[in-house]
Amino acid sequence: MPRIKLIIEYDGSNYHGFQRQNNAHTIQAEIEKQLLNLCCEEISICAAGRTDAGVHARGQVIAFNTVSSIPPAQWTLALNSFLPEDIRVLSSSEASPDFQPQFHSVSKRYAYFLYGRKPAATFYRKYALCNADPLDTIAMSQACQFIEGRHDFRAFCASGSSAKTFERTVLHCSFKEAGALMRLDIEANGFLYNMVRIIMGTLLEVGRKRIAAEGIVDIIESKDRAKAGPTVPPQGLYLLSVTYPPAKQGDGSFASFLGS
Amino acid sequence: MPRIKLIIEYDGSNYHGFQRQNNAHTIQAEIEKQLLNLCCEEISICAAGRTDAGVHARGQVIAFNTVSSIPPAQWTLALNSFLPEDIRVLSSSEASPDFQPQFHSVSKRYAYFLYGRKPAATFYRKYALCNADPLDTIAMSQACQFIEGRHDFRAFCASGSSAKTFERTVLHCSFKEAGALMRLDIEANGFLYNMVRIIMGTLLEVGRKRIAAEGIVDIIESKDRAKAGPTVPPQGLYLLSVTYPPAKQGDGSFASFLGS
Repeated sequence: MPRIKLIIEYDGSNYHGFQRQNNAHTIQAEIEKQLLNLCCEEISICAAGRTDAGVHARGQVIAFNTVSSIPPAQWTLALNSFLPEDIRVLSSSEASPDFQPQFHSVSKRYAYFLYGRKPAATFYRKYALCNADPLDTIAMSQACQFIEGRHDFRAFCASGSSAKTFERTVLHCSFKEAGALMRLDIEANGFLYNMVRIIMGTLLEVGRKRIAAEGIVDIIESKDRAKAGPTVPPQGLYLLSVTYPPAKQGDGSFASFLGS
Repeated sequence: MPRIKLIIEYDGSNYHGFQRQNNAHTIQAEIEKQLLNLCCEEISICAAGRTDAGVHARGQVIAFNTVSSIPPAQWTLALNSFLPEDIRVLSSSEASPDFQPQFHSVSKRYAYFLYGRKPAATFYRKYALCNADPLDTIAMSQACQFIEGRHDFRAFCASGSSAKTFERTVLHCSFKEAGALMRLDIEANGFLYNMVRIIMGTLLEVGRKRIAAEGIVDIIESKDRAKAGPTVPPQGLYLLSVTYPPAKQGDGSFASFLGS
């Protein structure tokens, strides 16, 4: 039975997050419903990362088995003709039979957008956190260097998380300003629950001069959630991309690996 | 009775255009409803330009008379606390008693956005025209120069228009590419009905090599709507700003004129 890998993009504004739930409109439920419409087959999908309500994705990865004879490269067109406009398949390919989008990933990249204009931002209200406070963006950028590396990120994990280990390696963390728009870029081998949103909330405290840039070191060492900043709202967060090792690209053929 | 001038921004996605209509949700009706909620006063507003359903504004200008004692500069905060998030007041000031946002304007600037990526564009679907055809953007940019100047733009006016004269002066017209996003910028002393959307549709025909860049000259001279390209959809169109002569800034005080 072929296994298909899709890279998808979605506007999370109108969904209660990725994961299927009873009585809630979710990305997973919508995709599985349209797969049923397309293939007349009950298909269960799994994803590289479950995004929360209101969180967006530019490069989420999902995989599923199917008995359908649709050629791997044709799933993009075929499924897009069924999906609503706020979920789009960007590319499709055949995956190896054991491909697991979450467990085989080497790293994930997220971005968090801030929009810093008064009085408000009509066009960014669902796509960024609007913050009109003056921010020390240089300090915020400096603080990012203390987040990079292998650390116990318990202080940046939502309480009640079921994570067994709290050590994660942040491969890249930066904060940039481009006019009224600001963005946090972070890549790690894995993320704890709400980790990016708590890091962004803590960087905002640095920007407001309530925490010094070097204060990030103490917060990490404290392993105390109460020392970090608040969890910022979901609408500024984007899952940008997921990286796999060459042997686990999820693509069944060398040709599609070269093109990925 | 004071006259108030507001500069407003709106996401036109969820409205049947600017102008009040029976049984339709419009920008004007929403603003007048919230002015009633704010002031307990029936207020009629007039605007610099009526935008169609789905068209956006970054700098629409409206004006109204009121008996309210709200200080002119406070209208921004006061009205924003009542308006839905997709309509925002950017600034407020006192206008001269005879200020007419439409008739006193010297020029208006519009932009039209294209997004050129396959297979589709989740995040731009309400904010740009998605076009994945290859386009000769150099020819499109060259074609813009033939649109600048004083011309009879009848060929670029929707049929059934009630316009009495078709001569307009285009002060600026340019087409730029920035990655997957492309934009037409056009400023004129006035616009005919659907003029920007028909110009964009004609430039797309130039981009697809169905019309030569210099062909714009013939289309203008023909005064024949059938010679120009199709009217592109509304969601890529933005009213960016409206310019007034210094004496008719619409601001009652020299101080507010200096600040505008």
